[in-house]
Amino acid sequence: MSDPIPSADPLDDLRALIRGAPGPDRGAVAAARARDAELTKPAGSLGRLEEIVEWLAAWQGRTPPAIHHPLVAVFAANHGVAERGVSAYPASVTKQMVANFAAGGAAINQICIAEDISLKVFELALDVPTPDITVADAFDRTGFVATVAFGMEAISGGIDLLCLGEMGIANTTVAAAVHYALYGGSAEDWVGRGTGVDDEGLARKRAAVEAAVARLDGERDGLEVLRHVGGREIAAMAGAILAARHQRIPVIVDGYVTTAAAAALHAIDPHAIDHCLFSHLSVEPGHRRVLERLGVKPLLDLGLRLGEGTGAALAAGIVKSAVRIHAGMATFSSAGVSERGVH
Amino acid sequence: MSDPIPSADPLDDLRALIRGAPGPDRGAVAAARARDAELTKPAGSLGRLEEIVEWLAAWQGRTPPAIHHPLVAVFAANHGVAERGVSAYPASVTKQMVANFAAGGAAINQICIAEDISLKVFELALDVPTPDITVADAFDRTGFVATVAFGMEAISGGIDLLCLGEMGIANTTVAAAVHYALYGGSAEDWVGRGTGVDDEGLARKRAAVEAAVARLDGERDGLEVLRHVGGREIAAMAGAILAARHQRIPVIVDGYVTTAAAAALHAIDPHAIDHCLFSHLSVEPGHRRVLERLGVKPLLDLGLRLGEGTGAALAAGIVKSAVRIHAGMATFSSAGVSERGVH
Repeated sequence: MSDPIPSADPLDDLRALIRGAPGPDRGAVAAARARDAELTKPAGSLGRLEEIVEWLAAWQGRTPPAIHHPLVAVFAANHGVAERGVSAYPASVTKQMVANFAAGGAAINQICIAEDISLKVFELALDVPTPDITVADAFDRTGFVATVAFGMEAISGGIDLLCLGEMGIANTTVAAAVHYALYGGSAEDWVGRGTGVDDEGLARKRAAVEAAVARLDGERDGLEVLRHVGGREIAAMAGAILAARHQRIPVIVDGYVTTAAAAALHAIDPHAIDHCLFSHLSVEPGHRRVLERLGVKPLLDLGLRLGEGTGAALAAGIVKSAVRIHAGMATFSSAGVSERGVH
Repeated sequence: MSDPIPSADPLDDLRALIRGAPGPDRGAVAAARARDAELTKPAGSLGRLEEIVEWLAAWQGRTPPAIHHPLVAVFAANHGVAERGVSAYPASVTKQMVANFAAGGAAINQICIAEDISLKVFELALDVPTPDITVADAFDRTGFVATVAFGMEAISGGIDLLCLGEMGIANTTVAAAVHYALYGGSAEDWVGRGTGVDDEGLARKRAAVEAAVARLDGERDGLEVLRHVGGREIAAMAGAILAARHQRIPVIVDGYVTTAAAAALHAIDPHAIDHCLFSHLSVEPGHRRVLERLGVKPLLDLGLRLGEGTGAALAAGIVKSAVRIHAGMATFSSAGVSERGVH
């Protein structure tokens, strides 16, 4: 599916990788479905847990699917647009929270302990924020490709489930700009209060998103949108999603900001995120809208709006139970349990 | 709050216990809320996880709340109404599934392993089904009180979180009768396909629920409803919920059948189930209706309809993460993270 005509645009290489990603393993799905039918429970009675098992089988390419080495990868970045007063917190908090992750003091650390998931935090040049997207592109072409490539390199073959999360003051502003650029509507549709900005800050946030997207002049190519109005953590997460697909690692997406990375890939190829499970519905009002555009149903709805991969890691706990059920349950014949209709 | 006039009705002793249950520990809630405000995250950003911590503090009566000894208690019973052909499975499956629980082969076994939760299964005279409720009461007064008391005794003080579940062929028929008796409407409102009964079975199920509730002649007392049209696992779970309250053990309720036990107590005193978290929204269509009547919002919506406590145990995993977050996170001052508005 890659472009047969050589091009000088380095983004074309990414587009080729996105469009050339491997498809699901239909044999593994069929095998999972066949085993599920033998398990000592009514068919369909585990609802989304059964769907999760089929999804894992499809994208791990094995049956039964297994989770031995799950990872939460948190990408952290700073944003020039933070200077516009769009967040309730100062930009210095990004670096402070990265230190908090390293010290084990953040919410995501606790969930990773509870769910027995590894955690890696990737800092993306926190001292050099991307340019303010209301007046300049976030990346030049080379820098953009390098950041996506960083996210691709961050994903190694040793893991079998990837939960994505992020940290970056002002990044719900950036995510809103990405979604507004991709899907249109009005800036208000995509801008929420993030970590809890006040009314004046919300107005500044809307104005910033409006100004940033106006610079795009109607451009809706997923990668160009990210390059113009995205941020480093979003670009790196797009790379991580892409690399995971090529390495047969299923991905769990976190909230509004992480979804922006998936949305950019989806704009290039709607099947590029078929290996992604959307963990939760964020309180950020635009999140429901983008999930609808992607045609996906989030697993959880817990009123979260923290980021850090917290929703993804909680969902991973459900996924781990689903996998264990599928692998560990007895069958009707092995347990001597009567099947339905045997009155 | 107990009835000052001595009565020969043994159900009155239960009513007094229900109405005399201890209230929440408001001091523990206030302490939990104060600690939450200090944690390195925006206020409110963990949504229902924060509510869960306050709920646990309220009903464990301590801060920080802790979960060291969670238990899934599954109550199993058989029902004379199964003879009416209301289930997709034969009544013999109840006993077979209890053996499957003991052998570790059921879905609930796997979730308990994944979430590190103990599992106990209580059999309630499986060889002697309760009478067919379409023609006779499920219990006489003495037998009913004894069954509730069995459920109360099953809950020992060593546990700090109780997840309730059940197993019993035909028990969605019984639960539907309980809900229809308590809330009225039509039998159709409360009868679903359970484990997957076909159209003819569904018609028989509706007729059975209609006939059972007709015998009640408008009686809506929660305990009398259970005695007339309930079943042993539902009566025992009502006892377990009641005993847990008196022992300061928060309870996680599973699906449609388990909710019937809570609904019966709620009919006696709406505050009698304030210590209960409703784990998930079942596919059984009446479940949404009864949860609305109880004024509660389920934590998960995963399309489950298995019972066994599976939804409750999955929710317990979320609850455990919430507790760990609350206890383990750093504070703004300890981590050196700037609070909001410090620009």
